Amino acid sequence: MSLELNDILMAAERLRPYAHRTPVLTNKSLNKQVDAEVFLKCENLQKVGAFKFRGACNAVFSLSDNEAARGVCTHSSGNHAAALALAASLRGIPAYIVMPDNAPLVKKNAVAGYGGLITFCEPTLEAREGTLDRIRLETGATVIHPYNDERVIAGQGTAVLELLADIPDLDVVIAPVGGGGLLSGTSIAATEIKKGIRVIAGEPEMADDAFRSMQAGEIIPSKNPKTIADGLLTSLGTLTFPIIQQRVEQIVTVSEAGIIESMKFIWERAKIIIEPSSAVAIGVLWEQKIDLSGLKVGVIVSGGNVDLEKLPWQP
Amino acid sequence: MSLELNDILMAAERLRPYAHRTPVLTNKSLNKQVDAEVFLKCENLQKVGAFKFRGACNAVFSLSDNEAARGVCTHSSGNHAAALALAASLRGIPAYIVMPDNAPLVKKNAVAGYGGLITFCEPTLEAREGTLDRIRLETGATVIHPYNDERVIAGQGTAVLELLADIPDLDVVIAPVGGGGLLSGTSIAATEIKKGIRVIAGEPEMADDAFRSMQAGEIIPSKNPKTIADGLLTSLGTLTFPIIQQRVEQIVTVSEAGIIESMKFIWERAKIIIEPSSAVAIGVLWEQKIDLSGLKVGVIVSGGNVDLEKLPWQP
Repeated sequence: MSLELNDILMAAERLRPYAHRTPVLTNKSLNKQVDAEVFLKCENLQKVGAFKFRGACNAVFSLSDNEAARGVCTHSSGNHAAALALAASLRGIPAYIVMPDNAPLVKKNAVAGYGGLITFCEPTLEAREGTLDRIRLETGATVIHPYNDERVIAGQGTAVLELLADIPDLDVVIAPVGGGGLLSGTSIAATEIKKGIRVIAGEPEMADDAFRSMQAGEIIPSKNPKTIADGLLTSLGTLTFPIIQQRVEQIVTVSEAGIIESMKFIWERAKIIIEPSSAVAIGVLWEQKIDLSGLKVGVIVSGGNVDLEKLPWQP
Repeated sequence: MSLELNDILMAAERLRPYAHRTPVLTNKSLNKQVDAEVFLKCENLQKVGAFKFRGACNAVFSLSDNEAARGVCTHSSGNHAAALALAASLRGIPAYIVMPDNAPLVKKNAVAGYGGLITFCEPTLEAREGTLDRIRLETGATVIHPYNDERVIAGQGTAVLELLADIPDLDVVIAPVGGGGLLSGTSIAATEIKKGIRVIAGEPEMADDAFRSMQAGEIIPSKNPKTIADGLLTSLGTLTFPIIQQRVEQIVTVSEAGIIESMKFIWERAKIIIEPSSAVAIGVLWEQKIDLSGLKVGVIVSGGNVDLEKLPWQP
């Protein structure tokens, strides 16, 4: 295990000029509803609307000038692509983004809007990886994986650093888990900064590969996950899984109804827009499968990128 | 004119233990869109989801113990009713709220949820005032008007105090105007704290009584206003109008389309839920009827209480 608290502290220095220090919000109605004292670390209010900017920014600004000059590349249709495009543009270097040609228009526009150079490909993993490999060989760009990359993990860990600086006496931190970048970075930072803090993950019941991986003691890949939390479809990575095994107390699965209900509750009461993947972390409190009553619970609200034309509570 | 900066400073002390110090958010996309450096003072993230809590809280905690013991009362179907109910419950005194019986269920529930004692009446001004008068006589409760009350105006002025503490070099402050409580409090605090700061109001074109009042030099009552910005239907008050005349540079009217477009833009890009009345203030920048290019502009985002089932961009 080579990734340490110090890497996360250095990431925090590196991204300070570029990232928002996001606010921590509290809401009495939520506290009453879930019987805990909840602190929402609002990464939905981060640049590009997601914590992903932290990891991408740390990765981009970790590169040597020589490496950076050749640019960065990744395949992603989601927040990581937009985050990498913005981080690269802030360093003044190209970001080559491979996207499946069936990606939603709003995501294509977001990446293009941040100056990302998009190459479209067929919507299969083979096509995505093949296209990325070709671009990497042609350009010499550095591949920045969305989560299985120590620079990215360290960047994601900076959100909880800020949260613990604001609210030092948290008992528990909850983050959602997809590929595990946010969760592993959060777990290192939290447990190193505050001995005894409990780190818990929320995962959709309908995409519970991390839950099953923890039980099995090995990475169980995600198979045909079907959940509204479209940021959490990926499987754990070889870097993230061991960290999670070592530092995360447990992974709690959340039903689709719990995701939608808690998402709507946060919109209505806390007046912030959170995406379904963030609601998975709230959902751990919402469904009360585990007893956190009376505790001070920090939640990493991971992002706010939602299609406002298609809300899940609409007919 | 008896209301002074000192009243607002005292209000700030009075409500500090109860109100959120709301965050100030910035958004690069918004800045680019409107060609200004915008600072959003997020009163949508205030308790009860609106700045109204500040005024209600200051009024309630300004009462002597004797007055307070008899409670407070008002007629309102909006944010002021919820704000007064919460403020009263924090002081442990009754809040008698007169609401028209056709008020939306969600508003009735909000007031009841904060412990307000609701009396329903016919949806006419006569019925509302008559009912309120009867309750006042029966209970001895103090009437807290939603805006034509110095304690309320002083409370509303505390939001811009915090904004200017965070961002001292603002060139302009924009607030929406309905009855003028927020605008008058904001204008006193802003112009007293920072000489030369420009205070501008946004008002719906379809409810432009304040605009016309400024032109006429006297209060022109609102007549059948029809706007999506349902928090801005009221006419100016005898206390608020002279302050606005003295301290507000101009009132800029905003079209219904401008309100809806800027509201959706803020939801999509800034990831916060704002109500149409708040979008009226953003709309001043959005429609660029006046030139604020390159300036540092603070916007009081007044509230975030919206019916999520009925969004204006839905078919």
